[in-house]
Amino acid sequence: MVIPPLRRDADFFWHSGGDDYTAAGCISDFQANMRSIGKVETRFYEFNDRKDPLHLRVGGELDRYTLAYEMYGRMNSDKSNVILLFHAMTGSQHAAGLNPDVPGLDGRWTEENHRGWWDGFVGPGKPLDTRIFCVICVNYLGGCYGSTGPASINPRTRKVWGPSFPVLRMSDIVDSQMRLLDALGVHRVHAVVGGSIGGYLCLLVATRYPDRVRTVIPIGTGPETTIYNRIINFEQVTAIEADPHFKGGAYYGKARPDTGLALARRIAHKTFVSLEMLRERARGEVMNHKPPHGWYEMNHPVESYMFYQGVKFVKRFDANSYLRILDAWQWFDLAAEAGASNLNEAFDRCRSHQFLVFSIDSDLSFPPVEQEKLIKLLKRARVPAIWITVHSDKGHDAFLLEPKLFAPYLQQALQH
Amino acid sequence: MVIPPLRRDADFFWHSGGDDYTAAGCISDFQANMRSIGKVETRFYEFNDRKDPLHLRVGGELDRYTLAYEMYGRMNSDKSNVILLFHAMTGSQHAAGLNPDVPGLDGRWTEENHRGWWDGFVGPGKPLDTRIFCVICVNYLGGCYGSTGPASINPRTRKVWGPSFPVLRMSDIVDSQMRLLDALGVHRVHAVVGGSIGGYLCLLVATRYPDRVRTVIPIGTGPETTIYNRIINFEQVTAIEADPHFKGGAYYGKARPDTGLALARRIAHKTFVSLEMLRERARGEVMNHKPPHGWYEMNHPVESYMFYQGVKFVKRFDANSYLRILDAWQWFDLAAEAGASNLNEAFDRCRSHQFLVFSIDSDLSFPPVEQEKLIKLLKRARVPAIWITVHSDKGHDAFLLEPKLFAPYLQQALQH
Repeated sequence: MVIPPLRRDADFFWHSGGDDYTAAGCISDFQANMRSIGKVETRFYEFNDRKDPLHLRVGGELDRYTLAYEMYGRMNSDKSNVILLFHAMTGSQHAAGLNPDVPGLDGRWTEENHRGWWDGFVGPGKPLDTRIFCVICVNYLGGCYGSTGPASINPRTRKVWGPSFPVLRMSDIVDSQMRLLDALGVHRVHAVVGGSIGGYLCLLVATRYPDRVRTVIPIGTGPETTIYNRIINFEQVTAIEADPHFKGGAYYGKARPDTGLALARRIAHKTFVSLEMLRERARGEVMNHKPPHGWYEMNHPVESYMFYQGVKFVKRFDANSYLRILDAWQWFDLAAEAGASNLNEAFDRCRSHQFLVFSIDSDLSFPPVEQEKLIKLLKRARVPAIWITVHSDKGHDAFLLEPKLFAPYLQQALQH
Repeated sequence: MVIPPLRRDADFFWHSGGDDYTAAGCISDFQANMRSIGKVETRFYEFNDRKDPLHLRVGGELDRYTLAYEMYGRMNSDKSNVILLFHAMTGSQHAAGLNPDVPGLDGRWTEENHRGWWDGFVGPGKPLDTRIFCVICVNYLGGCYGSTGPASINPRTRKVWGPSFPVLRMSDIVDSQMRLLDALGVHRVHAVVGGSIGGYLCLLVATRYPDRVRTVIPIGTGPETTIYNRIINFEQVTAIEADPHFKGGAYYGKARPDTGLALARRIAHKTFVSLEMLRERARGEVMNHKPPHGWYEMNHPVESYMFYQGVKFVKRFDANSYLRILDAWQWFDLAAEAGASNLNEAFDRCRSHQFLVFSIDSDLSFPPVEQEKLIKLLKRARVPAIWITVHSDKGHDAFLLEPKLFAPYLQQALQH
């Protein structure tokens, strides 16, 4: 790809509107010339082709479905400057700028969602520089932020999908996004970037669609589901499914399984931050001494902090979407989903790629040993790869919070 | 204490019966001259003195209550050879030998309970040598193995205590056991020994009753509730209290909150074993693909293993007891419960003690940094202390599983 000369006219930015919104605070001041994207809107692409349905890995197919996505920056003439960015478990298509509303989400687009989850990374002058690249981020199929998922209406029955929504695998999510790229006329992306299970999707693009990507940037991820994640994911499944309001997933229009979903979030959340960080965050937290349900009284701010994480979360997420994505995580099988007979064969396909692999030293969810597994596979396959460990006290979530730690290598890998 | 010469007559052993039971397998063969305790029975001590009730820390009092305990070995004439052994969260008074039945437990005395939980440690020739010492282990007040707890009958109302059972703190459990020692005519014990939160109780005896103990042996514990344990304990509280069968704790005679209690156990269990151990244990586990409640299918033996841990556990434990003990853990405040204004003051009382502190390198529940905190307090107070780290791939539970790692130091500390 030829990197175009920098253009400074506002028109260059796909989504730059009249809104004079500026990214605030800690994540925006490390580079003087960077600016915020401004106000953005989610777009929707509707697939509707009975002759060419999306065949799902476990069985079944979808012919009428929608993907919600956002784009930042403009495609160049040969559409060679696209970066496909994958969100993590509970993220959304809204990676950068300010999006105060996504229609049709039944209240799930809360204030927490308004600012893009990677706003410090995506924008003019930022590591994913929208003066150069066109960044696309798509809500997972099965998600709950505009892409078709269990909370959507099944066009066949005109009722909510609910538990009848098909079971998904990570490769189905990737397949659906490749179809969106087809629809946008993009055959090959300049790079795929993603953290956490968004990193799984990077690895799947690289191995399942090796000719559709050049640079692969998985962050805080690995080539398999870890034992620890298997265990806590399964705890979360039980927490949700055992909620009396869950009713096998048929809770729409009734009371929602908020208690179970909140507990699931708490179970996961502690692995996304470092314990030191939790201690810090919890300081000064307002105590709500008695949670509902029983006689137990919280006695420490960290309990109150975790409780509130759960309460906040259920406002913005759908339990069935959560379960569908957890399920795809549990069953993630990179080799099989890549269509390879083993991981070595899968990574042998990546020799024309370049990899940039990030570890976070304090990551409890995907500790550095997981990236080491990935690097061993890449080395064996002789795939060019740079492996960087960033040191942070913020744990797994450092990839959302500390652009400074990632920016120089992201820029180098993307612009060369 | 003067250590009596070894006596080999069977009569010496308090509980040695006609049963020719021998401890089997991996935990019994590291020392040639050791033997099993044989068959044992739980004893019950009933307190019933309106003039001298047990005043509880949070408020309220108990005057009529029972403690279930076992004794191994015989007290010497001046009752100076007693070792008070504390069980952990879900343990029982049955530490050694074989006890096939404890009456009145409504089916909770399952096969899992029959062999003593420290059978490899307690017996003739074993580290807690019953040829020399009289080992006493007491079921926690609030527990469910014979001591008065939420599942017991309230003698005032003649109904099950249920949620009306008083809230307990760790110091209440210790106080109740000191009263049992009073009743048995034991003023000062030779040693207190306990792992996990049993170690909290050791530290409380040492600081709250400093003249009642000589040697203090806390294993895999610490001077405070860790942030990680706070978080997962609170998850467990929610898991149980949110179970629709919990009904605020008033579930006796009806369906029990098994789903919530099983989930709680799973949440805890993963911190008691190492992940490597879990991977091993899970191998060859029979898969039960579909747990109840929902559509989710397990896909890995470790899920099946964890699921089964929960299923097994609920047969043997009462949810209200579990919550009461969790609550005491969450609120554990060593200095305050010792009646000291801070931890330094508390440990200043321990100068005539000797401490043996064990760490387990792979312990996720009480990692070595917690014992380091304890050692710093002891050093500052100039308390004689030996600190040993054992290396094990079994995690926190190594203190239940690997007598070989602890035996020589236990023997040294107890017999000098």
